[in-house]
Amino acid sequence: MISKKMQSMVENGSVIRAMFEEGKNLARIYGADNVYDYSLGNPCTPPPESVRKEACNILMNEPEMLVHGYMSNSGYEDVRASVAESLNRRFGTDFGAGNLIMTVGAAGGLNVALKTILEPGDEVLVFAPYFVEYNNYISNFLGVPAVVPPGADLALNVAGAGQVITAKTKAVILNSPNNPTGAVYTEAEIKALANLLETKSAEYGHAIYLLSDEPYREIVFDGAEVPYLTKYYRNTLVGYSYSKSLSLPGERIGYLVIPSEVDDFEMTVQAAAVANRILGFVNAPSLFQRVIGRIPDQTSDLSIYAKNRELLCRELGRMGYRFTAPRGAFYMFPESLEPDDVKFCAKAKEYRLLLVPGSSFRGPGHFRLAFCVSHEMIERSLDSFEKLAAYYR
Amino acid sequence: MISKKMQSMVENGSVIRAMFEEGKNLARIYGADNVYDYSLGNPCTPPPESVRKEACNILMNEPEMLVHGYMSNSGYEDVRASVAESLNRRFGTDFGAGNLIMTVGAAGGLNVALKTILEPGDEVLVFAPYFVEYNNYISNFLGVPAVVPPGADLALNVAGAGQVITAKTKAVILNSPNNPTGAVYTEAEIKALANLLETKSAEYGHAIYLLSDEPYREIVFDGAEVPYLTKYYRNTLVGYSYSKSLSLPGERIGYLVIPSEVDDFEMTVQAAAVANRILGFVNAPSLFQRVIGRIPDQTSDLSIYAKNRELLCRELGRMGYRFTAPRGAFYMFPESLEPDDVKFCAKAKEYRLLLVPGSSFRGPGHFRLAFCVSHEMIERSLDSFEKLAAYYR
Repeated sequence: MISKKMQSMVENGSVIRAMFEEGKNLARIYGADNVYDYSLGNPCTPPPESVRKEACNILMNEPEMLVHGYMSNSGYEDVRASVAESLNRRFGTDFGAGNLIMTVGAAGGLNVALKTILEPGDEVLVFAPYFVEYNNYISNFLGVPAVVPPGADLALNVAGAGQVITAKTKAVILNSPNNPTGAVYTEAEIKALANLLETKSAEYGHAIYLLSDEPYREIVFDGAEVPYLTKYYRNTLVGYSYSKSLSLPGERIGYLVIPSEVDDFEMTVQAAAVANRILGFVNAPSLFQRVIGRIPDQTSDLSIYAKNRELLCRELGRMGYRFTAPRGAFYMFPESLEPDDVKFCAKAKEYRLLLVPGSSFRGPGHFRLAFCVSHEMIERSLDSFEKLAAYYR
Repeated sequence: MISKKMQSMVENGSVIRAMFEEGKNLARIYGADNVYDYSLGNPCTPPPESVRKEACNILMNEPEMLVHGYMSNSGYEDVRASVAESLNRRFGTDFGAGNLIMTVGAAGGLNVALKTILEPGDEVLVFAPYFVEYNNYISNFLGVPAVVPPGADLALNVAGAGQVITAKTKAVILNSPNNPTGAVYTEAEIKALANLLETKSAEYGHAIYLLSDEPYREIVFDGAEVPYLTKYYRNTLVGYSYSKSLSLPGERIGYLVIPSEVDDFEMTVQAAAVANRILGFVNAPSLFQRVIGRIPDQTSDLSIYAKNRELLCRELGRMGYRFTAPRGAFYMFPESLEPDDVKFCAKAKEYRLLLVPGSSFRGPGHFRLAFCVSHEMIERSLDSFEKLAAYYR
């Protein structure tokens, strides 16, 4: 008797979820230390000590009716001002409190943004391979995902976008650093995309929004630069989450940036605040808003991800796995050693390696490796990667 | 260029919101102490000391990767078990962890429930006067609100529901204790409604869900009993929030109860967890889940609301205002002293009384008084109520 759409979603299930259950099974059989779980994008480094310290400080010293009470649906003004100043300091932007809406993570922010801009039937471009949860966010508002095929070596396929874009395109979602590939798009790629969107906005006579989903912004390697998209394209909305940078995925805290130069700025900001309210978020959780307001520049110690990446790239490269080294996030996306990536990942499971098939991200012929795991687990797993490669040789 | 629906929502604005701005204006002119703001349903009593104590305990002593990490989309199992046991203790129910989904407040829970059950075009019954935000929740999923006219003296209009219900009715939202009236529906009323829904479910050959929105459950007067709806009707889903009982509206913490006896229980529970994920909530905020798990039976000191109610009922009664005394929540819903409640509330503003017109709740000819305010403010405001009544005499 429940909604048919939800029924089919339950029946089709989630591959990553199934893998999670499978992993628990294998751990029971072989022992947790002998199962190498690369399937989950869950931070493996603790929040900085300042999170605990500031949360306790706020609980002990700020007025409790302020800390736990209702505030504007956009969030506390002082918190938004603090985050805006942090962005300005770090990225040379010019935001104020009025450009920010505190959100229930980036997932909440993207839903708010899509509710704000989409009409039923509007198309939203996504670049394969991609986090397929975007499909659900888009279809929540009766939008239609339009998939741009992958570029060579994880490059942003702007030419491909030019072929997929139509008069019905209302938005483009960009995720850099990228899940599942670890790609960080270069300034040249961003400029080419901005150029395309400007041309097409003019041609079709309506704004095409660029939605930047960037929870991995702070996780980059070898000094990779992540261009701040609002500086390249006017109608950009930025969704951010502290889930990865502060290792706080459970707290559901993030923000949406709406730059003053977007079309109908005042209306857009108000509509986003209304969307935040009526979607049932109401406001981002209050205590953690206040924590963020006190430590807007901080991150967890993220060095573990660089260390893990180095080991995996060196060793998997040596074994003959083919991949483009990730420049950010905590994922890599090597080619599967047989064309059918689902079969390949099933085979990997025989070596107690839990890998996610690239097909789950609309990137067949590959697999995703989430290296937000302990360095020791990677070391222990190398023998299995070697045996898996040997099997296919 | 944003969604037309959102644009019109911004343009039509919120009456309560407008009143909030107006209140700030009046406070600037007359001084905050000389403006009597009865417009907002924001708790005026602090959270119990245990909230601060347990939150700090958890931050200092529980593993931080557990406290702030991802958990199942339904919430921590130990927290759900603790809440289930609390409900069983207090209401004689028989819930386990598997019957609960922790949600981003009751607003989040209602959205999850509606996403789970509604097909486009399904009708959802609401009893006037009602919290009109329900309209937005329903239309998020392309449902259609069907309004049952008010009963006499705030009684539940079951006969009216029988006339409004159709084969397209998928759910009925019940809010007891009620916003905006303060009504608490009796066991006899609940039984009559359950009886109607059973008859109509059988007649139409599909489940009609009863959605209980009950954030005010713990705020009752003169020993009023609030029947636990799952005991009266099989296909009941309960949405709860700690916003009012623990004075934590900013933290966005609540739960959804899905009893084992609902149709297709397993499927429904899984679909609700998926809905929680894809709507962008992902999970209820983790730290406050853990706080609730430790103090599932506690409330703020709620005695201020009884004290305020007594004073207002006595004095407004004496002045000739006509109303049914609230049995719960922190609202009363007197008749306006002229038929046009919007004009009446505008007149009240001249006496620096901020009241919300009943029309904003589809209950014209009345006004809502939110008495979650300081007792002293009520005392100071009585002269204005007296003058307002005198004006109309």
